[in-house]
Amino acid sequence: MSSSIAPYPAGIEALSDRASASPESGIVEVLNYGMGRQGIIPLWAGEGDIPTPAFICDAATAALAEGQTFYTYQRGIPPLRNALAEYTGWLYGTPNSFERFFVTGSGMQAIQTAILLTADPGDEIVYHAPAWPNLPAAAEIAGVTPVSVAMQFSETGWHLDLERVFAAVSARTKAICVNSPSNPTGWVMPKEDIGALLDFCRGRGIWIIADEVYCRFVYGDVRKGAHGRPLAPSFHDVITPEDRVLFVNTFSKNWAMTGWRIGWIEAPESIGIKLENLIQYSTSGVAAFMQQAALAAMQEGDEFAESVISDACRGRAIVSEGLRKSGRCRFAEPDGAFYAFFGIDGEPDTDKLGLRLVDEAGIGIAPGRAFGPEGAGYMRMCFVRRPAGLSDAMSRLNLWLAKR
Amino acid sequence: MSSSIAPYPAGIEALSDRASASPESGIVEVLNYGMGRQGIIPLWAGEGDIPTPAFICDAATAALAEGQTFYTYQRGIPPLRNALAEYTGWLYGTPNSFERFFVTGSGMQAIQTAILLTADPGDEIVYHAPAWPNLPAAAEIAGVTPVSVAMQFSETGWHLDLERVFAAVSARTKAICVNSPSNPTGWVMPKEDIGALLDFCRGRGIWIIADEVYCRFVYGDVRKGAHGRPLAPSFHDVITPEDRVLFVNTFSKNWAMTGWRIGWIEAPESIGIKLENLIQYSTSGVAAFMQQAALAAMQEGDEFAESVISDACRGRAIVSEGLRKSGRCRFAEPDGAFYAFFGIDGEPDTDKLGLRLVDEAGIGIAPGRAFGPEGAGYMRMCFVRRPAGLSDAMSRLNLWLAKR
Repeated sequence: MSSSIAPYPAGIEALSDRASASPESGIVEVLNYGMGRQGIIPLWAGEGDIPTPAFICDAATAALAEGQTFYTYQRGIPPLRNALAEYTGWLYGTPNSFERFFVTGSGMQAIQTAILLTADPGDEIVYHAPAWPNLPAAAEIAGVTPVSVAMQFSETGWHLDLERVFAAVSARTKAICVNSPSNPTGWVMPKEDIGALLDFCRGRGIWIIADEVYCRFVYGDVRKGAHGRPLAPSFHDVITPEDRVLFVNTFSKNWAMTGWRIGWIEAPESIGIKLENLIQYSTSGVAAFMQQAALAAMQEGDEFAESVISDACRGRAIVSEGLRKSGRCRFAEPDGAFYAFFGIDGEPDTDKLGLRLVDEAGIGIAPGRAFGPEGAGYMRMCFVRRPAGLSDAMSRLNLWLAKR
Repeated sequence: MSSSIAPYPAGIEALSDRASASPESGIVEVLNYGMGRQGIIPLWAGEGDIPTPAFICDAATAALAEGQTFYTYQRGIPPLRNALAEYTGWLYGTPNSFERFFVTGSGMQAIQTAILLTADPGDEIVYHAPAWPNLPAAAEIAGVTPVSVAMQFSETGWHLDLERVFAAVSARTKAICVNSPSNPTGWVMPKEDIGALLDFCRGRGIWIIADEVYCRFVYGDVRKGAHGRPLAPSFHDVITPEDRVLFVNTFSKNWAMTGWRIGWIEAPESIGIKLENLIQYSTSGVAAFMQQAALAAMQEGDEFAESVISDACRGRAIVSEGLRKSGRCRFAEPDGAFYAFFGIDGEPDTDKLGLRLVDEAGIGIAPGRAFGPEGAGYMRMCFVRRPAGLSDAMSRLNLWLAKR
């Protein structure tokens, strides 16, 4: 020690307000508690039980062997940006410029970047809740106030009242965030509401941050996309290329790449240079060999993506049947995404239920409070998994419920 | 189109102030301009010309084949955190707890996270300049004011006057950033100054953000680390584990992993949960298979790292000799890092010189202004490369100079 001066100690109180106020994710709390437990069935996170398929991994391996290990384009490698434009055109039937696409180091980073692009410290963003907690948490860390609009639950499912969204907008509101299909509620924004929200935002110059990560996970009687398969209504259906709309997306869900941390933003071309700068000053781009894997997912991954969507369809049926069988769950089959978000009669306090179910039932489920106070009393269970594990999980849950 | 309302157009003026004010990196400007040019010798970025060695790539490939593609620990996988603790202990001869180590999605993200950990919007951080531009840019985006302290150049090299640093501190200063050995100047903070700065910060509860990425790239008559090889003076030499010091670091330089985007933070254990939260709400961790590659770098990478350091030693000699030969360069051999930062007599305006040298000389060099106004009139050239390319680059530069 060179110093005779006693240090101020470190510790949480020594941190910035935004860091010390940052909440622990209630999902991560359960995950950290249960990860690695013998025999646990983990349904806490939004990921399946199938590793990334070999054709995607092989593309990364080949790129590594070729020496694609140097700095690369901050916006993403041109072939991947082209593929993203083609993929989006394939889904929505509208031609799209590769200049609108920017590769990010996860869908999460896409959200963080979208917030920074649109809002300054002291500004507000409006979002609907229950919501994936990372959205409001990222806003707070950016110095931006997240303003939540509560959704309503009924027997027919979750509902968002657009008038409440409009009422939550203030002079400081810079963006409205829509996550449809929604994690955790499974809600899908109706086509008419998408048009109405766009009109509202157009009239005021407010940005829309559209998280349509689960766009291909929709169930029941839904419209078919340009690619001929089920597809949720989208802001792609109503915007012009220079509308103030930012799409945040990820490779995680469709192609079983949750652990990779690679996503993208679709944005008006005219803001490209500033989007590039924000990437530069956060992670400085995504590894080229990872992008080659993402390119393989885009180009050769349709069959695999369809198999994941099929797993979700089957999983939805298994979980819905199991919850109905319990006779004690408040629940509506979700229209989209791949989560059951349900309440349990006689268990009003679900905050620590996730931890208890790890210990007492051998299943990992996230507490609804992890998705904001609007989620209190509910639990979220991921169902994008192979049938056997899900059936087993439902048996365990119902056995546990029967004992209580 | 569903809407009859004309949209406010997108565009830079539609963005947040912080996004629209975010500067283009002057390094990236040259890189984007010259990347892919036939025959160019690229010395613009801080990377060598050798791809990541096979033993590191192979570890990623093996982990991919094992299915390590799921979400993982936000703080990093335990074996890598252990290896980071051991590596740091090996360098500095002080035992270190793995709980102090947090894996990040690049050294850049480590810096961004360190800023967010310590400073709120409206706060200030103090740094010395010329500096890597990403530090002040990341601060601005976080709503934090970066306050620069100009270094002085003389024939013996760059110098930082600590009294100026102290004078730049205000009631709003939350952290002082020290990058030693320094990019771009090659300056190395003397041992006594490290102790004095720690004392100053201890007395005031100010954090130190220590970017010691280049700690093993030091030249001339320098002390040996605990590992028996050259090592720059470090805050590791003077701190206690709970001092308010954050080390930001990267795998990029020692192990030729620039394109991977993987780094780490060393921090007091007591802030671990908040550091984990900031990772969660930015990129949600680093791919497990990438961490396995980083682990291989830590465990088996010493010989390779030494070869990179040797390249830098040789490169420093080649570049110094070339610059001396020109008879027109203001320059002192750097004590550390792997950049020549030099002025050219008769070329006071170096702002666009980087672009011109791409066209006119076939070499890629970053303009000093990319490192702040304090760098005006200088150019930065990376010399961590194999000798042949560097000799060629110096010939091209001197040929170009001779014609003017």
